[in-house]
Formats: sequence, structure tokens, C-alpha cells
Amino acid sequence: MSLAAVGTAYLCSDPAADPRAFRNALGQYGTGVAVITALAGDRPVGMTVNSFAAVSLDPPLVLWSVRNDSGRAGAFLEAEGFTVNVLASDQVAVAGAVAATRTEGSAFDEFAWAPGRGGVPLVEGALARLECTLHAVLDGGDHRILVGRVEQCSVAEAEPLLFVQGGYATAAALPSPAEESAEHRPGAGANQFAHLVTAASHRLSKAFDTHRAEFGLGVATSRVLKRLADGPQTFDHLVRACYVGPRAVEDALTELVADGLVSASGEVWSQTPRGSQVRAAVAARAARFTDEALAQIPESDVAAALRVLTALAAD
Amino acid sequence: MSLAAVGTAYLCSDPAADPRAFRNALGQYGTGVAVITALAGDRPVGMTVNSFAAVSLDPPLVLWSVRNDSGRAGAFLEAEGFTVNVLASDQVAVAGAVAATRTEGSAFDEFAWAPGRGGVPLVEGALARLECTLHAVLDGGDHRILVGRVEQCSVAEAEPLLFVQGGYATAAALPSPAEESAEHRPGAGANQFAHLVTAASHRLSKAFDTHRAEFGLGVATSRVLKRLADGPQTFDHLVRACYVGPRAVEDALTELVADGLVSASGEVWSQTPRGSQVRAAVAARAARFTDEALAQIPESDVAAALRVLTALAAD
Repeated sequence: MSLAAVGTAYLCSDPAADPRAFRNALGQYGTGVAVITALAGDRPVGMTVNSFAAVSLDPPLVLWSVRNDSGRAGAFLEAEGFTVNVLASDQVAVAGAVAATRTEGSAFDEFAWAPGRGGVPLVEGALARLECTLHAVLDGGDHRILVGRVEQCSVAEAEPLLFVQGGYATAAALPSPAEESAEHRPGAGANQFAHLVTAASHRLSKAFDTHRAEFGLGVATSRVLKRLADGPQTFDHLVRACYVGPRAVEDALTELVADGLVSASGEVWSQTPRGSQVRAAVAARAARFTDEALAQIPESDVAAALRVLTALAAD
Repeated sequence: MSLAAVGTAYLCSDPAADPRAFRNALGQYGTGVAVITALAGDRPVGMTVNSFAAVSLDPPLVLWSVRNDSGRAGAFLEAEGFTVNVLASDQVAVAGAVAATRTEGSAFDEFAWAPGRGGVPLVEGALARLECTLHAVLDGGDHRILVGRVEQCSVAEAEPLLFVQGGYATAAALPSPAEESAEHRPGAGANQFAHLVTAASHRLSKAFDTHRAEFGLGVATSRVLKRLADGPQTFDHLVRACYVGPRAVEDALTELVADGLVSASGEVWSQTPRGSQVRAAVAARAARFTDEALAQIPESDVAAALRVLTALAAD
């Protein structure tokens, strides 16, 4: 039975003709973030990827992809194996350092690691490390698919770093319907409080997204523009500072230049006067939006709520 | 330079010898959730997967994996193509219906869809739909890797559904360092309020995880046990009701049976008397934990905070 469409609006595109629209479609699928490490001779090499996927339990296989024309592809294809370091939510800086560094090796000065199986770097503090031998290299269009056989794995207790719709994120658990209904039971005052805090947090974050979108800005474009308010920046600097991947920064810069908000000069990117205006308007809107939400509420209530939230947020 | 290990505790295992530990390690990498659809003759077939990965931009390729011994593998391998429906955060029921249904086709009575390219079902309300022709089938151990060439894609405005550490989740954006520091600036009162709401929400959710863990329960085991408090249930019912994937339910049941908290009889799972006791203790702890956090705070402040949060959470 095919039910009638319920009216979701879709933007359709031909991926072969419009690679940017295709990339945007792919970006809707949330992923973790992994740093793949290997040895090129005795030199550590790394890549930040979100193309990792589980494949097989028996034998234990996993895969990820590397662009054929990546300067680092050769090192991974020639190495005996690689290690998948699944990053924890406090490791955005590690992801950024490995993603930004165009000269191999130097990123490894910026975070703690230790040699694992065969000397391949294990990223310290990663949520999980899968130490693989290279099992197969498969054709994947403009990428190679590297299949690894997992020889050893190690897991720590931490939260995963996620990459969702072009920006880094953490996970917020979805309550099961049973939990939700329990929270709404009369008399469940304490759980109702917890539920309200979550709902308010969600609502404020949505409101911010909406206001930013009113100015035609997404997560990456808004961060890049904000960053450039401090002065001209290089691409590498933007990748590290904006907490979005290098592709998202690339796309954001293309969009901002097309809209006349940013200009390039050599290796350096700057805000245009119009970019400064838009940036100032977004900042003013952001400073106003919680004020508006709180405007109907007596000041004494807001002060009390601040005290309660401060107590709850303290560790 | 290899910095000294900073003391993260890791649980190591041999994936070939301990498939459950390996599955747990794989589960640390967060993913989206996709329903893959195809036609078997003129009958729609579907699978809920989290093995999707982007591969290539030119040509536009994506991949996912299917277990060799899955009853539905044949239909996907013989079809001319498949469609990847990336689920939105309000589509847990769709994921559950497709995952639970062992008799093909009937899941398609439970959600809205429309025939797309070649009649292959497009899930209505999905965040993105990638309509593919089957490009290659690659060997992946106990799975086949299906590579699709994306012929058409469509994207809607929505939030993605995620699958993280064995349970469904939504994304919470990580602020960039620039945004964080702006929020802590003195005088930025409104933004400070938004920041506190987020921090309090995060803290309460962490506290709940900690308390549940004190009873030796994870997300899936705690949900399965809670569900069974309402009476004996079938496996399919648990998969739909617990908002975790079928593998997580399987693992949870194995663990709960080993711990003497759940017993099986035919197709039906029940709480043991000891399971009821543990369940009651967890429920009591959960009802108490926000109370404790609020105990130091004057009642009038808590009442005011409830009014403010109710106003903020309302749409």
C-alpha cells in the first residue's frame, strides 16, 4: 500500500551534474569521526575521515575510503595496516589538527599518542581503536575503499564525537516512548523537571538555528564569517577554529564569496564590508533571542531559574 | 613525538575470539539510520541499516552492507537498484517497523511512502533519499558490500536520526570555541541563560546514565527490563518498543538472561522475580535523582524555574 505523500518539501538534484548538492545530501547521514593512522616507513601519517563503516563480524572487517588524488593515499595503500581511532566528543582539536595539516607527520606533535601494533599510532583518549591489517583495496570511483581486518580492538568509556549536517556534534539520547510517558505522569515532579530542562534546551537551540537561517547562513558559513570578524585568516586556521570539517569550510567560503560577504587574497580570506554588516546583524539577533523568550517572564523568576540551573549545571 | 599515555583505561579484546566485544567496539562509532528499499518483483522490500557510507563524488557512489545469510539479501542483490532513505529524528517508528518485520512487505503498511525511480519506494519524511542503480557487489566476509551509483537525490529540511552506542539519538551541536567564549563574557546574560540550560540538561542526562550503570545496566538492558515490567513480550515487540536496534535487543536479552533478570519461554520473554526487584530499584533511583539535585535549593526558586522552563519549552 502506498500512502499519499504527506507534503514534505524536497529539493531534488542530479548528483552527476551538481556535486555540491550531492555532498549536501550525503551530509544528511550523521557519522562518527575517525582518525586513521598508519606508518609511512617510520613516520606516522593520519587522516580524519567520516567514511568508516562496519562490514563483517566473522572475519572481523571494517572499511573506509580515501580519495585517489589525496597526497596521503599512497602511504595508506602501501602500509601493512592501519588503525581506526574513533574520536571522543572532547577530541575536536585532534580531528582539526589531522584534517588541517597538509605536511604529514607534524599533526602528531599536537596530541598524545602511543605506538600500537607494528608501531602504528594509537590516539590516546580515543573512544575505540581498531588495529587492522590491510585486507583488500576495492575500487570506489574517485576513491579507493580500504578494507581492514581487525586484529585487536580497545574501548574506553566516553562519548563519541559526531559529524552531522556539516558540523561537529554530540549525541542526545532519544527517550523511548515508555520513558517519555513516565515523565509526564502526574506526581513525577522531579522527572518532569529534567524533561523540561531538556525540552527548553532543544527549543533554544532550534531558535538560534532559525535566526541564523533568516540571514541565509548555515552552521559552517556562520562560523567562518564570525571567525573572519577577528581579521583575515588562512584556510588551515579556519578549519581548526570553526569546528567543521575542511570540506564544509571549503563550501562555506565558496558560498560566502559568491554572496559577496568574503573575499580572497592569496592564501588569506577576509570579510568584505557587507560581510561585516551581516555578521553584526546576526550577532545582534543572537544576543536578543533569549531575551525575547524571557521577556514575558517576571525578572525575579528568571533570577531564580538562573540560580537553579547554575546549581544543576555545576559538577 | 609520542607523548606519554595520559591514563585513559581501555578494555582490549581479540575481535575474532569475542564477537560481542567487537560489536561493542564498532558501536562506539556513531552513525545515521537508513532504510534501504528495493523491489522484489513488484513487492517492496526494506532493511534498516547503519552500514551506509559515502564513497565517491565523480561518479557519485555510495555503499552499504547486507549479511550473506539475511533472508532479504537475495532481493537486494537481484534488484536493478535500491534507494537509501536517510531517516529523520521523528522516524524511529519507521526504523523499528522495517527492522522488526521478518515477513517482507508488511512493514510498508505502517508508514507513508511513494514509488520513486523504477517504482522503488521513497520513504515520506526521510531527510534525504538517494536513488541508486546497483553499481557493484563486493566481497565483505560474512556480508556483501553493495555499491550504488546515485542517479537522483532529494533532500528535506529536518534533523537526522542517529544510532549511537546501541541506542537511537539526536544531535546536539558542539559550539565552536569562539561561541563558547562569547557565552561566558560578562554581560552576555541572555546567552549565559541558554548556555546554562544546555549544561543543566547535559548534567541531568549524565547523572541518569551513572545511576543506571550502578545497577549494571546500559541503555538497551535498562529499556528491555523496563518494558518487561508491563508483562511478557515477544522479540519483535521489544524491538519496536525499546528504540534500540534488533542487535542491541538481542545482546540485552542475552545479558539479562545470563544475569538471571529475564527468562525465555517459547517466543516470549519475561522478567524473573529478581529482574522485578532490580527494575523497581532503578525506578526508585531515577525518581530520586533530580530531587537530590534540587534538595539544596529553596522550593520557591524551583517553582520559579519550572515556570520559566515551561515558558521556554512551549512552542
